[in-house]
Amino acid sequence: MEAVLSAHADLSWMLAAFVFVLLMFPGLALYYGGMVGARNVLNMMTMVLATLGITCVLYVLFGYGLVSGPSVKGWGIIGNPADYIGLGKWMSDDGSGGIQVLYVAAWFILFAAITVAIVASGAAGRMKFTAWLVFVPIWLTLVYFPVAHWVFAADGDGYSGGFLLNDIKIHDYAGGTAVHMNSGVAALALALVLGARHRRMERPHNVPLALLGGGILWFGWFGFNGSCAGGANFLTQFVILNTLLAGGAGMIGFCIIERIREGHVTSLGMMTGAIAGLVGITPSANTMSPVGALGVGIVASAVVALCLSFKSTFKVDDTLDAFAVHGIGGIVGTLCIVLFASGSAPAGVQGILFGGDFGVLWRELAGIVITCTYSFVMTWLIAKALDKVMGLRVDEETEMTGLDSTIHAETAYEIPAAGVGHGSGLTEAMVGRAVAAEPEDVTQPSRGFATS
Amino acid sequence: MEAVLSAHADLSWMLAAFVFVLLMFPGLALYYGGMVGARNVLNMMTMVLATLGITCVLYVLFGYGLVSGPSVKGWGIIGNPADYIGLGKWMSDDGSGGIQVLYVAAWFILFAAITVAIVASGAAGRMKFTAWLVFVPIWLTLVYFPVAHWVFAADGDGYSGGFLLNDIKIHDYAGGTAVHMNSGVAALALALVLGARHRRMERPHNVPLALLGGGILWFGWFGFNGSCAGGANFLTQFVILNTLLAGGAGMIGFCIIERIREGHVTSLGMMTGAIAGLVGITPSANTMSPVGALGVGIVASAVVALCLSFKSTFKVDDTLDAFAVHGIGGIVGTLCIVLFASGSAPAGVQGILFGGDFGVLWRELAGIVITCTYSFVMTWLIAKALDKVMGLRVDEETEMTGLDSTIHAETAYEIPAAGVGHGSGLTEAMVGRAVAAEPEDVTQPSRGFATS
Amino acid sequence: MEAVLSAHADLSWMLAAFVFVLLMFPGLALYYGGMVGARNVLNMMTMVLATLGITCVLYVLFGYGLVSGPSVKGWGIIGNPADYIGLGKWMSDDGSGGIQVLYVAAWFILFAAITVAIVASGAAGRMKFTAWLVFVPIWLTLVYFPVAHWVFAADGDGYSGGFLLNDIKIHDYAGGTAVHMNSGVAALALALVLGARHRRMERPHNVPLALLGGGILWFGWFGFNGSCAGGANFLTQFVILNTLLAGGAGMIGFCIIERIREGHVTSLGMMTGAIAGLVGITPSANTMSPVGALGVGIVASAVVALCLSFKSTFKVDDTLDAFAVHGIGGIVGTLCIVLFASGSAPAGVQGILFGGDFGVLWRELAGIVITCTYSFVMTWLIAKALDKVMGLRVDEETEMTGLDSTIHAETAYEIPAAGVGHGSGLTEAMVGRAVAAEPEDVTQPSRGFATS
Repeated sequence: MEAVLSAHADLSWMLAAFVFVLLMFPGLALYYGGMVGARNVLNMMTMVLATLGITCVLYVLFGYGLVSGPSVKGWGIIGNPADYIGLGKWMSDDGSGGIQVLYVAAWFILFAAITVAIVASGAAGRMKFTAWLVFVPIWLTLVYFPVAHWVFAADGDGYSGGFLLNDIKIHDYAGGTAVHMNSGVAALALALVLGARHRRMERPHNVPLALLGGGILWFGWFGFNGSCAGGANFLTQFVILNTLLAGGAGMIGFCIIERIREGHVTSLGMMTGAIAGLVGITPSANTMSPVGALGVGIVASAVVALCLSFKSTFKVDDTLDAFAVHGIGGIVGTLCIVLFASGSAPAGVQGILFGGDFGVLWRELAGIVITCTYSFVMTWLIAKALDKVMGLRVDEETEMTGLDSTIHAETAYEIPAAGVGHGSGLTEAMVGRAVAAEPEDVTQPSRGFATS
Repeated sequence: MEAVLSAHADLSWMLAAFVFVLLMFPGLALYYGGMVGARNVLNMMTMVLATLGITCVLYVLFGYGLVSGPSVKGWGIIGNPADYIGLGKWMSDDGSGGIQVLYVAAWFILFAAITVAIVASGAAGRMKFTAWLVFVPIWLTLVYFPVAHWVFAADGDGYSGGFLLNDIKIHDYAGGTAVHMNSGVAALALALVLGARHRRMERPHNVPLALLGGGILWFGWFGFNGSCAGGANFLTQFVILNTLLAGGAGMIGFCIIERIREGHVTSLGMMTGAIAGLVGITPSANTMSPVGALGVGIVASAVVALCLSFKSTFKVDDTLDAFAVHGIGGIVGTLCIVLFASGSAPAGVQGILFGGDFGVLWRELAGIVITCTYSFVMTWLIAKALDKVMGLRVDEETEMTGLDSTIHAETAYEIPAAGVGHGSGLTEAMVGRAVAAEPEDVTQPSRGFATS
Repeated sequence: MEAVLSAHADLSWMLAAFVFVLLMFPGLALYYGGMVGARNVLNMMTMVLATLGITCVLYVLFGYGLVSGPSVKGWGIIGNPADYIGLGKWMSDDGSGGIQVLYVAAWFILFAAITVAIVASGAAGRMKFTAWLVFVPIWLTLVYFPVAHWVFAADGDGYSGGFLLNDIKIHDYAGGTAVHMNSGVAALALALVLGARHRRMERPHNVPLALLGGGILWFGWFGFNGSCAGGANFLTQFVILNTLLAGGAGMIGFCIIERIREGHVTSLGMMTGAIAGLVGITPSANTMSPVGALGVGIVASAVVALCLSFKSTFKVDDTLDAFAVHGIGGIVGTLCIVLFASGSAPAGVQGILFGGDFGVLWRELAGIVITCTYSFVMTWLIAKALDKVMGLRVDEETEMTGLDSTIHAETAYEIPAAGVGHGSGLTEAMVGRAVAAEPEDVTQPSRGFATS
């Protein structure tokens, strides 16, 4: 009975954590949407949001089994979906009081969908929307589901799970491999096949929205990392603090590089740094002391910032830096475990700088190399094949006009410009009016432009 | 003691779920605000947000008793507020460890306020704000509180609850009737009395905000549906998964219809579909298998999309489609229970396609007809009466100028246009500096459309 | 074992509450960012968000001990950081099942960072960003950490906590002193040293974002006030309801004053009122009946609204009204305890209007006077010193051009104006296409004001 009550209390947290992760979808949609041009924002947001619909269907049909089912032949390569098709066998309470298959399904749908949503960033502003709708289910099936099986499926009573987790025994707390490296590398491969945008120097069209999106991602990250503790316990508190610290320190690491290199600190750089720090702590959250978590945040974000120095010389148009932030960030976070994990942290992994043995180095390297290689090669093959079959890329006119109006028949904004309408003295007039009409702040209605 | 500990664990989830629902208010304000024109966005958002203030006062004064109090004379029509006026009798802990009257008050305030906030969408862009402030408390008192009593107040020990729930025994998991049909039908009646906008073809002024608002609504929906399980248990996991699946499938159903009819998929259509799917699963979340939940999402959103085909031929200006999305969506979701509810789901209702008996059909139809008829007639009467007494609608000049500047003395945006202001020293200086100082990945400003 | 299970259930709520509070950072960044001009929005948001990074580092290094450590010499002035430097001593589970030092660290980091983030509003649009990055750690160390020790550190077994809490025994439920008065008064002092903006009458550039930000703050406030109950219990339900009611009533109080004074109700006024109500309920949430909480909301927001009447005659440019909202709002909320606290509420404090003894008056006055005086004097001294050493304020040209482009080398928006580009083939093509492809409810683009 105590076990049931304890599982019950854990479930309360796990449910909340699930809901936090859901908000990462509008968060990611804004983060990416705010960074593209105004003519592509709805396309970008729709690419991100559409992943949820597709993943829901796939996961119920066969995704759950491929990820979490017992390994086919015990090879650790892919799960057996037999018992999980439609999830109809899991509709009754097992009495454990805790999380059951239906919860895990909902939770892992979000993990899968957010991973492929990150890949979308590599295709910003130039991919056919129908091609994306075909790419997503293929990529999930051939790339995400296997990799997630490798690292998320634990050996069970009488059956085997994934080989990276159980045989190679990599340490990856919350998805540095299956989620971050996987998506970052795949975004790169997709961008490579698509080719660069015709007008690569597009400025972010709505930075406040991107900052909001980044802030929401941080919020959701506590659900992401926090739920991987499996309940509300000491470990959860541990990773919650480290997730906060790595994000905060990530701001600092990125900004230091930016300041040295360019002489100023940007708001988008600060947020990118926070995200890079959060990526870095994802595999390592249960291995670091608080000071170590600050270190992960600073190192991961500084390395990402340094990598972005070479962006303009790099031929592949990784449009919104998913490879740098999620790929490199995930690799650096994993290498931080190797270097300075604290043996006193719950995971009990000792970094080699602190006298740990070198086994952790080989295990983590194997995880990085296998995940990145598989993801890159498979994504490239899928993208190439789709390009042959249906064409991935929109034509140049469509691209230059923007995807919102051409593909979705929508425009994002109908906002009158400040000062527009009085020729150009309008700005002046507006400011004048505002001043004149401004009471202590608003006694007289300033009717703005419309009355002119 | 076990019961207290179990109630305690449930309470943790219920508290979090309450907080999730609160975020639906800014979410709904953005969802509707983004869809109206830029000259009415603040009016729209204020109409939504103001419902919270009014509902707080009403609920403490007498709303709680009208909804949750013992039925007057045991008729199941309306609760007796006597014991609940001011809620002062419930200020001490009953020792149960679980949710108590004060929690229920807070939680139901959100349900009531979100319902009337949806009604606001039918009046977008043409209703006097003072008329809205008078309409809200009257509508809550005469329409929402009774209907909520009918379906939310369970019979108790020695007293009776609402007649729809206890006598007719309709199945409505989380408010398909009292919240969604009620608000959708009321929005229609209010729009009918108000008349159509003078300029009906207004484009959404800020689609990214509307998408964010929709995403936040989805987030809050997990609190809404999840809290109706009464705690953190197997049922909660069940409805959480189904709420995710119906939203995801809702995206797909709407987009299929849109694609067939118009040849493209819009971002706003995708989000509208998600909301329609969520409305559909609200009454049915505990009656569907996971595959059934996907079906509810697809069917509800496709039907809503089909209904919107007739929008331009429909005389009533249901401005933001509340009747289609919440009214029709709620009805379709309820009919899905009748048709294909799974007997293995926690509610144990068997749809007639799966051999269930026809009792469920009559019960659900009774719920739909009684709720929709009452809501429509009463709302129409209230609106007509208010129109006589104070006038509901602003004059034409106010409407054409926009309600933000005329009624609220505010304008939503003071944003310089991209590339505008060559010739205006201020803007030019700004753009010039930005170019000069821009880091290398954005060295050349692409000023979007305006510069060409 | 029961105690462990109970603590475990509490922990589930406390973890969720922590995550809610995190979202207050993007919320506050939007709330303030939306209220400044478009040329300063990124600077404002970055000032707010940067506080998180700095506080993370400081808190791990020594902040935790200064706030929560045993009082040095038992004087109740400042905590002893010795045992908490780096937090490395607290990396193992104490087996209590509940919150432990690492949780408290994460949670209090958010409290500290949000407090100094509010101070940023007093410096909007004219402070050097580097000066802000220096000001934040100094202010946290010399002002926030001591004040937080005074009111948050309870006496423990064999050691002393803060003097305001334990010796003077003020009643401050969730930080009316350390968070709200402290930040409001500090914003005033900083604004005084900085001097007024050259162009003081700047209109809010994006009101919908500010409203969203305010809504998010309300959401986070449930985490803030709710977590101060220490778990999921009756008190939590009590304060959750009161936090809802005071916010809702705050909308009403502010709008009544606005309506009487100016003849209209603004959206920003309504949200400011909600925030003022929430500030008022922060110290008093566990002392008020539900009707009392409505009273706190109305009184606090009405007083804040009245104070803002004198804004234009007030020389100090408290740019975004932090002193009025947080300073005055916090003081009024505290005085509400003195006046009409209900003896039946969990805190058991009886207001003097209800026959309580005058002890509460002296205690609360002592808390107000000591906190406000210390905060004002110290902040003024820090600001003056920094002004001498490095200069706090940007030069006039930078200020007039805007801080986003000059300091951060960014511009917030690249959004084409509605209707702009008649004559620009691209925009026209876009609008044309949109029209052609638009579904029937938007066949004719209404280009808003610009076309008139």
